[in-house]
Amino acid sequence: MWAWLAIAEAKRPTAPEPAPPAEVAAQLIGAALVSSTAHDDLRVLCDDVGHRLAGSPALDRAIEWGRAAMARDGLAVHTESVTVPVWNRGEGRGAVVAPVARPLHLLALGGSPPTPPGGLTAEVLVVSSFDELAARAGEASGRVVLFDVPFTGYGETVAYRSRGPLEAAKLGAVAALVRSVSPTSLDTPHTGMTRAPEEGAATVPSAAVTLEGATQLHRLAERGAVKVHLELTPSAGPDAQSANVVGEVPGRTLPGEVVVLACHLDSWDVGQGAQDDGAGCVIAMQAAALIRDLPVPPKRTIRVVLYTNEESGLRGGKAYDEAHAAETHHAAIESDTGSGQPLGFHLTRGEDRTVEADLAALAPVSDWLAPLGAGTLDAGGAGADISPLTARGVLSMGLAQDLTDYWPIHHTEADTFDKVDPVLLARNVAAMAVMAWAVAEL
Amino acid sequence: MWAWLAIAEAKRPTAPEPAPPAEVAAQLIGAALVSSTAHDDLRVLCDDVGHRLAGSPALDRAIEWGRAAMARDGLAVHTESVTVPVWNRGEGRGAVVAPVARPLHLLALGGSPPTPPGGLTAEVLVVSSFDELAARAGEASGRVVLFDVPFTGYGETVAYRSRGPLEAAKLGAVAALVRSVSPTSLDTPHTGMTRAPEEGAATVPSAAVTLEGATQLHRLAERGAVKVHLELTPSAGPDAQSANVVGEVPGRTLPGEVVVLACHLDSWDVGQGAQDDGAGCVIAMQAAALIRDLPVPPKRTIRVVLYTNEESGLRGGKAYDEAHAAETHHAAIESDTGSGQPLGFHLTRGEDRTVEADLAALAPVSDWLAPLGAGTLDAGGAGADISPLTARGVLSMGLAQDLTDYWPIHHTEADTFDKVDPVLLARNVAAMAVMAWAVAEL
Repeated sequence: MWAWLAIAEAKRPTAPEPAPPAEVAAQLIGAALVSSTAHDDLRVLCDDVGHRLAGSPALDRAIEWGRAAMARDGLAVHTESVTVPVWNRGEGRGAVVAPVARPLHLLALGGSPPTPPGGLTAEVLVVSSFDELAARAGEASGRVVLFDVPFTGYGETVAYRSRGPLEAAKLGAVAALVRSVSPTSLDTPHTGMTRAPEEGAATVPSAAVTLEGATQLHRLAERGAVKVHLELTPSAGPDAQSANVVGEVPGRTLPGEVVVLACHLDSWDVGQGAQDDGAGCVIAMQAAALIRDLPVPPKRTIRVVLYTNEESGLRGGKAYDEAHAAETHHAAIESDTGSGQPLGFHLTRGEDRTVEADLAALAPVSDWLAPLGAGTLDAGGAGADISPLTARGVLSMGLAQDLTDYWPIHHTEADTFDKVDPVLLARNVAAMAVMAWAVAEL
Repeated sequence: MWAWLAIAEAKRPTAPEPAPPAEVAAQLIGAALVSSTAHDDLRVLCDDVGHRLAGSPALDRAIEWGRAAMARDGLAVHTESVTVPVWNRGEGRGAVVAPVARPLHLLALGGSPPTPPGGLTAEVLVVSSFDELAARAGEASGRVVLFDVPFTGYGETVAYRSRGPLEAAKLGAVAALVRSVSPTSLDTPHTGMTRAPEEGAATVPSAAVTLEGATQLHRLAERGAVKVHLELTPSAGPDAQSANVVGEVPGRTLPGEVVVLACHLDSWDVGQGAQDDGAGCVIAMQAAALIRDLPVPPKRTIRVVLYTNEESGLRGGKAYDEAHAAETHHAAIESDTGSGQPLGFHLTRGEDRTVEADLAALAPVSDWLAPLGAGTLDAGGAGADISPLTARGVLSMGLAQDLTDYWPIHHTEADTFDKVDPVLLARNVAAMAVMAWAVAEL
């Protein structure tokens, strides 16, 4: 052996070992709280790119934004092609036309077909539940069915946006209106996906009206016949090419075991997609960047995935799952409910599987995050993009945030950069970084 | 004298005297809290009439609504003709056109002139204060000046809506944008009056943008030139006839001394004018109706005045003052800040006059209203409609409400009936009825 090789061999440090876990956690928290990178990156996404529905040129620019930011931070980045559905909102107009004339602020629901040319005018049937619709099934034919259902929780109330139009169509309604899924409103319509009809079934033009519009229609309908005029011109295009953006910090000793940090890069076609889910993307990206900056990488591979098409099809989540089915996924952690005060993590391995052992194993992480207010670990849903992984039993976590200020802006023109508090955003980065590092290392 | 007259004389009861004051106060509070009349009347105003800017047919319908409701309640009602200015909003569109293309949600300010045909496109100068505008005066010419001033209190911040466009015009700006005067926003523009130019001076097209729009323009301007396109088509018409609606409960022993219960019946041309100031009207009307129902009327005359044209000219307040200048006004009480939890009353007799003696005299009223949470009496502003009376030294009061939920909807599409809590509305009626009776009796 040449002499210089022997010297190099002698100088090589022993296998690197990380600092004690609590010290690494403290280091990540400190680094997260003093950095403005996540907030700065999000500003560019919001202001320069703006909203970015699947299939839009803006989403292509967002993909390049994500790729460039992760490459800048030293992650190994690539994109993975995904075919996504295309739906264009077109124009949307609504009005009460009898017994009074009044504009009706609305947004077509994603997937809605258009109204006939020139729009449609029909009497409104107002119901407060699926049960009431069933009880009044004979009154729906030829009508516009309005689901005026107060917000009792997103998971519960969103059923009326998802299924309402299909249920109304089954009864012969000509269109469906849904009260926006939000606890409060400033005459604010909230868009979102409505479910596609099953094979052979029909659906009807559908839109979200505001709380103000829904309650006014309801009050008027209590006193007599109410007619509305609706004109919606959405159109579905051929599928388009999009991509998931993938950035990695390779694992130290178990590089084949992957911890996914998940978010979605697409947004609805209103506002700036700042909290839903631009915030989740910079949380995942910056958490990985901070782990990348540690003196010693974690045992397992950290893989950030900026998913495409969560909002209008979940094609990104499905495509990732298919492409990476043969890999070992140790865990997946999604952030997709904004950047309010982080509270902790919800854990799941899918239905019929317990997370009791996971909760016990992660107790030290809870202790490290408790001073941030983010120490609560419990059983609960994780995230839509990683749901195919969850269904296969992968330990899945959702970063849980205070949602008080989230639902009022969700899927609206008001989901804009000004809503993102830089201090709370940094706390979310800290929580994600510590949890990601812990599950990748421990 | 004929015998039957003597008999009648003998049967006539002795001069009626009211129950002890605290008992009357309790009676009024109880009656107010169990009645839904104010809420029911307000629903009709909001849903059947809707918003009602001075000069609109809707305001004429509102005048008939007020007249009929007070007549139904046994008040002596008449209307007093007032000539009002006419301003029609027309269309309003705005967009960022460089460095990005983005719609800009806005509402023209009341009194704004139109943009040139086809609109105008110009670079934006963003300032955060009048001081900054003065420091950057050389940059304003040919620009659209945006006042991006955060809400620190209505009285303070509204100065930018009132005076901003005139100040921008003096420096050669081509238009003015004002961040909406509100602490929070869901991409919500707030309209309102901007001041007319003094003799010989010019003004410029002006509109309120949302907090989201203003902060985005501000962020973009920090990084380079920002251009906007504005198209506003408001028009001023010839003056129109309108009216104040006046309803009275004649005084028992001092009918020539008047206590005015004030509100304004007109509203901005968005939403339903529910809190501003439909609520104030039904508070005043129902308070008077409850006093009318007492076994013994108060000594002085209670006079409800539903003023016209508060928002866009204050012609109703001025016309009332001129028509009734010779009368003795004992006091005037206005409700014009919605129907949140009533807190008490602000008292004033105009600048340079003290209300110390009035506060001392009304201490018992404070005790009666304290259990409602409405016992706070302090020195402070009363109301715009009664300001001509205030200026003449008449004891003027403003019913003070919790304003937390008021400023976010003020002058917006979201000022709708659903925002009015029937329990809080009834408490406001109670507070107004007790104070009105007390000052009319004591």
